[in-house]
Amino acid sequence: MTDFRSDNTCPPSAEVLSAVMPLLREGCSPYAEDEITRAVQQKFCEIFDHDLVFFPLFTGTAANALAITQISQRFGEVICHRGSHIFLDECGAVEHQSQNRLLPAEGPNGKIDPDRLPPLVDNGDVHRTRPGVLSLSQCTEFGAAYRAAEIRALSDPARSAGLKVHMDGTRFANALAFTGVHPADLTWRAGVDVLCLGATKNGAIGAEAVLFFNPAEAAGFARLMKRSGHLASRLWFLSAQISAWLEDGFWLKAAAHSNAMAMRLERKLYDIGIAPLYPVESNMVFLPMTATQSEELSREGFRHYPIVQPGGELAARLVMSHSTTKPEVDRLAGALSRILRATGNAQGKLPA
Amino acid sequence: MTDFRSDNTCPPSAEVLSAVMPLLREGCSPYAEDEITRAVQQKFCEIFDHDLVFFPLFTGTAANALAITQISQRFGEVICHRGSHIFLDECGAVEHQSQNRLLPAEGPNGKIDPDRLPPLVDNGDVHRTRPGVLSLSQCTEFGAAYRAAEIRALSDPARSAGLKVHMDGTRFANALAFTGVHPADLTWRAGVDVLCLGATKNGAIGAEAVLFFNPAEAAGFARLMKRSGHLASRLWFLSAQISAWLEDGFWLKAAAHSNAMAMRLERKLYDIGIAPLYPVESNMVFLPMTATQSEELSREGFRHYPIVQPGGELAARLVMSHSTTKPEVDRLAGALSRILRATGNAQGKLPA
Amino acid sequence: MTDFRSDNTCPPSAEVLSAVMPLLREGCSPYAEDEITRAVQQKFCEIFDHDLVFFPLFTGTAANALAITQISQRFGEVICHRGSHIFLDECGAVEHQSQNRLLPAEGPNGKIDPDRLPPLVDNGDVHRTRPGVLSLSQCTEFGAAYRAAEIRALSDPARSAGLKVHMDGTRFANALAFTGVHPADLTWRAGVDVLCLGATKNGAIGAEAVLFFNPAEAAGFARLMKRSGHLASRLWFLSAQISAWLEDGFWLKAAAHSNAMAMRLERKLYDIGIAPLYPVESNMVFLPMTATQSEELSREGFRHYPIVQPGGELAARLVMSHSTTKPEVDRLAGALSRILRATGNAQGKLPA
Amino acid sequence: MTDFRSDNTCPPSAEVLSAVMPLLREGCSPYAEDEITRAVQQKFCEIFDHDLVFFPLFTGTAANALAITQISQRFGEVICHRGSHIFLDECGAVEHQSQNRLLPAEGPNGKIDPDRLPPLVDNGDVHRTRPGVLSLSQCTEFGAAYRAAEIRALSDPARSAGLKVHMDGTRFANALAFTGVHPADLTWRAGVDVLCLGATKNGAIGAEAVLFFNPAEAAGFARLMKRSGHLASRLWFLSAQISAWLEDGFWLKAAAHSNAMAMRLERKLYDIGIAPLYPVESNMVFLPMTATQSEELSREGFRHYPIVQPGGELAARLVMSHSTTKPEVDRLAGALSRILRATGNAQGKLPA
Repeated sequence: MTDFRSDNTCPPSAEVLSAVMPLLREGCSPYAEDEITRAVQQKFCEIFDHDLVFFPLFTGTAANALAITQISQRFGEVICHRGSHIFLDECGAVEHQSQNRLLPAEGPNGKIDPDRLPPLVDNGDVHRTRPGVLSLSQCTEFGAAYRAAEIRALSDPARSAGLKVHMDGTRFANALAFTGVHPADLTWRAGVDVLCLGATKNGAIGAEAVLFFNPAEAAGFARLMKRSGHLASRLWFLSAQISAWLEDGFWLKAAAHSNAMAMRLERKLYDIGIAPLYPVESNMVFLPMTATQSEELSREGFRHYPIVQPGGELAARLVMSHSTTKPEVDRLAGALSRILRATGNAQGKLPA
Repeated sequence: MTDFRSDNTCPPSAEVLSAVMPLLREGCSPYAEDEITRAVQQKFCEIFDHDLVFFPLFTGTAANALAITQISQRFGEVICHRGSHIFLDECGAVEHQSQNRLLPAEGPNGKIDPDRLPPLVDNGDVHRTRPGVLSLSQCTEFGAAYRAAEIRALSDPARSAGLKVHMDGTRFANALAFTGVHPADLTWRAGVDVLCLGATKNGAIGAEAVLFFNPAEAAGFARLMKRSGHLASRLWFLSAQISAWLEDGFWLKAAAHSNAMAMRLERKLYDIGIAPLYPVESNMVFLPMTATQSEELSREGFRHYPIVQPGGELAARLVMSHSTTKPEVDRLAGALSRILRATGNAQGKLPA
Repeated sequence: MTDFRSDNTCPPSAEVLSAVMPLLREGCSPYAEDEITRAVQQKFCEIFDHDLVFFPLFTGTAANALAITQISQRFGEVICHRGSHIFLDECGAVEHQSQNRLLPAEGPNGKIDPDRLPPLVDNGDVHRTRPGVLSLSQCTEFGAAYRAAEIRALSDPARSAGLKVHMDGTRFANALAFTGVHPADLTWRAGVDVLCLGATKNGAIGAEAVLFFNPAEAAGFARLMKRSGHLASRLWFLSAQISAWLEDGFWLKAAAHSNAMAMRLERKLYDIGIAPLYPVESNMVFLPMTATQSEELSREGFRHYPIVQPGGELAARLVMSHSTTKPEVDRLAGALSRILRATGNAQGKLPA
Repeated sequence: MTDFRSDNTCPPSAEVLSAVMPLLREGCSPYAEDEITRAVQQKFCEIFDHDLVFFPLFTGTAANALAITQISQRFGEVICHRGSHIFLDECGAVEHQSQNRLLPAEGPNGKIDPDRLPPLVDNGDVHRTRPGVLSLSQCTEFGAAYRAAEIRALSDPARSAGLKVHMDGTRFANALAFTGVHPADLTWRAGVDVLCLGATKNGAIGAEAVLFFNPAEAAGFARLMKRSGHLASRLWFLSAQISAWLEDGFWLKAAAHSNAMAMRLERKLYDIGIAPLYPVESNMVFLPMTATQSEELSREGFRHYPIVQPGGELAARLVMSHSTTKPEVDRLAGALSRILRATGNAQGKLPA
């Protein structure tokens, strides 16, 4: 079986494992008061070319829920895409933690359309909740990457209206590798206040970095972590993973690799007349696929998640990871070719 | 420097590390749907001689807050000792998660006195919150271990009144090693509904086991984990640590060792006329100590936490771990001997 | 100035006032343990031809938030119309009280379209919140009244999927008067579990009735009221208002009157070629109106709320109350005729 | 039957009723945007000789929970007396609304002992909740009145440590009448930030005034009211009651009267050798009383609440109201004389 279900079903990377093992043979101060965590913060300051405050967390849901809570306000609304992870796949974590309402917004490919933003300005009406946070997913749940200008087109009006901007960067590295710009250009220079940068799906065991680009806004965050059970004794073990993950630019190389595997699949499918449902701008490929075809693909040894599209149609999500190999992609492409053609169902858009 | 601050500042055990590393070189299904987690559950059923449901969590605070929430009810009170970790050192995690009130109870050595339990029966008064959960710490924050009969003396009236019983077992292994009874005798046979069994402070990297002795009471717990950001992608990594920790009874051997180190220190101090503040029934020794003495002890290379006693007096907490050695204990005893005598302050109770 | 802003800006009805005054000259048992409250419950059982449990509340927001909380479940979703009061005008009260998510649904005239209901069945996915409550507004925020069959078309699939059904009946009496059916036909016979029946906007000073049609589902509701500060000492004063309001069918007569006033306005506007934006099925008339026209209308002495339509266009909401008179309606119609014609803006749909 | 259960079981005062009735015959702007509310605020500014912001609420529990929430902070503790209403009789309302912990403090007669205050200074430990609010009850649940100096002895250290001070003034008027000082001396001059001033138990139908002595601290309070269902349409009806209650100093006259009735009872009991359990400094008298005696008292026509003392002994609470008469008190004293003597149980402290 080859596993294309998600980028968290593969093993962590050898690079991360070999770097953290020696550290595990020594003790370290608990609760984020350690030197490893401080060193990672310094490294992030350099990478993002900005003063920032860093906290490690064990899961992406924790990172999103706590980061948004930290920058939110009472009676607030968090504007997010209707297909975003915080809206669909975190079981209400953001609402429970922040006591804010999630307000789903629309737009193609998982990106919020700036022309379809809900009202951003608090009109002072005591009967209404008020916009407080704009949350963007980079890349989106459908694998698309926001360009810097696209982020600014959303963050500019949001910030003008007094909102804070959160970025769910579970696959930020993939978006960064795809766009090829400086990390600052996709974050603080584009109006992002806090980034939840995911390492778990890109080589770490389980570690996410919360980065506050305005250090003053991070005050009290450790207590928020404690109250939610996320201030671990050996929090330094998460920082250690992130440190290893950043080392020598591994994080970008790994992301570039999984992106390349997705694009390799995309090209091979184009060649046989199958187009993906969304632009392939990271490490995910979505294909229209019937339940029968999906079962056939599984039977041939390719694990994947069948998903339901917003309109109700079925599709398959195929996710590449840091450990996906070219032969695996080629075998997958071969199987897809047989299955989708055999059932007369190659409904992708043909390239012009 | 030798570190006696806590049992979470030492490195994880070699036994756990060597067992989890090979597993990290392979992938596994995410979100607790893996075989490692299922195997650990089976192992716990055997150890506790009871059908049970197991979930792994990353921190003890998360384990306590979620387990208590799961067995609590609306408008409820959680009765706990005034010195308990959930009351003093979790920044309101239980209240935030469960929306219950913590009701501090009294008793010596961190044990709740059965004669000083608050009212347990809900009198139906709509103006009042109602007792819902009794939470016991095993061993207590002061290092004392409840005997089976002591647990029953508390759980019997609680259960008769309809309460559920939670056990914060951060150092349950130490209490088990000290009392020498069957794990069932300190838990379900003594009326405990859910045990939070800590491995982090006894050899694991960071992993706690929540054990529901009534499987039906665990329904929906995974969603509670998800909503609080604790349903990690690689949750199996926590289960893997616990699996290694249980292997060949390592967990009990490690606990017996750290207990023995504490008792060695106790004996050596008794020899020079210094008695600890609380009975040494696990891996912790508390000594009366002035701020000056505490500084002197640090200067001599022995890290420790100075703590304030309920009555306001200063003391030192000295915690042994799975990796504490006899020479370390002996050097500590020597330093304490010099410091406490030199300042004319050996105020422990002399043995008769 | 004549006030058409809302049906809560007029004075309470003389009928209610004259009935409650004598009661206020005597004391009564506090906290809903009084005989007036019990008698009202009995009266409601007769009116709705069903065993039920009644609680009085001071505001509609409290009634909605507490009633929904009572029938909701953990990790739940409350499906409501995008234009509903609980979604738009209660500042997050339902979410704060119930810890559930509000899920906005679509449909014309403030009614949820049965063909556009979100998924109702909990698929067991721990990453997702789950549908728990369907909330309907009767009449809707746009003045339309659900027919019994329309309610069933929504409640049937909801109940089949295990959801509970809440009805925000702030203007239930108006819908009842309009449809002319038995109260049971619009509630429990149509699948409604709990009705929040408003008296405040129809003659009372400030009183709402929460009616649970399944008495077992009301258990613990008094504690929910207490915890939210709604179990008043003189709660019987609210019951007394409701008692007077029900007396001799006053509630239906008052609703029929305000409905008739709205329809009188509608007819007079049709005569001059102006059609309302929504079907007039209760006591509210919505007209397209520019900001300039709205100001002109105010200057002529007719208070009203300018509102923004979902599409962004401006409109005026004109609400009739139990105390609105025919001459007031006729003068309003005259003013509207002048203003809307004068500005060449009579854009209502002409009757065929 | 004469009713001494509480000061909320009697009818509202004729003064309040006759003043509010004419207002109820007219409409008024909803949601606290009315002139009555503004006029009451002005009146309170004069009475308290200080700029302040006023909001009316329907219940004391709502007033306390919302006022404390408004001045509280995240991860906070609210220090209150172990016998206070917010701790014992509001079903967790403060915790639910504020997400703060209530920390019970000790002291005689319901007053917090300044020498037994818990630590007030936030030590910055992220594992701990932090002191945020000090809540005082004036008069206390046991009928004692804080003197100005006693309030300052508590508020001074609290404010120095950065805490805000809340006063639950359900019976503030009684304390004011008893001490005879200026209202400012018991509030802002003594360090009180927000007062919840009760009118319900002293002549109103149901109305409480929240007074913020620092207007800036009231920002957003109306939204808090809305979110909790307390921003009523006819909120002005509550303000109208308070306006009438303040008129011509009625509030103080009514309080002085009920105080006088309590002291009359105390004197008559002293004469026969029966002393109350607590100093009679307002309108409540507590007497030791067995269950048999309590039943006998009820049989003779005197309703009252039997209560359990902190130590477990039984007692009777006898509460005087604005409408209690001298003959009623005298008859009660006579009955008590017979019952307590007859059973050989006149265990009050005899005056020297």
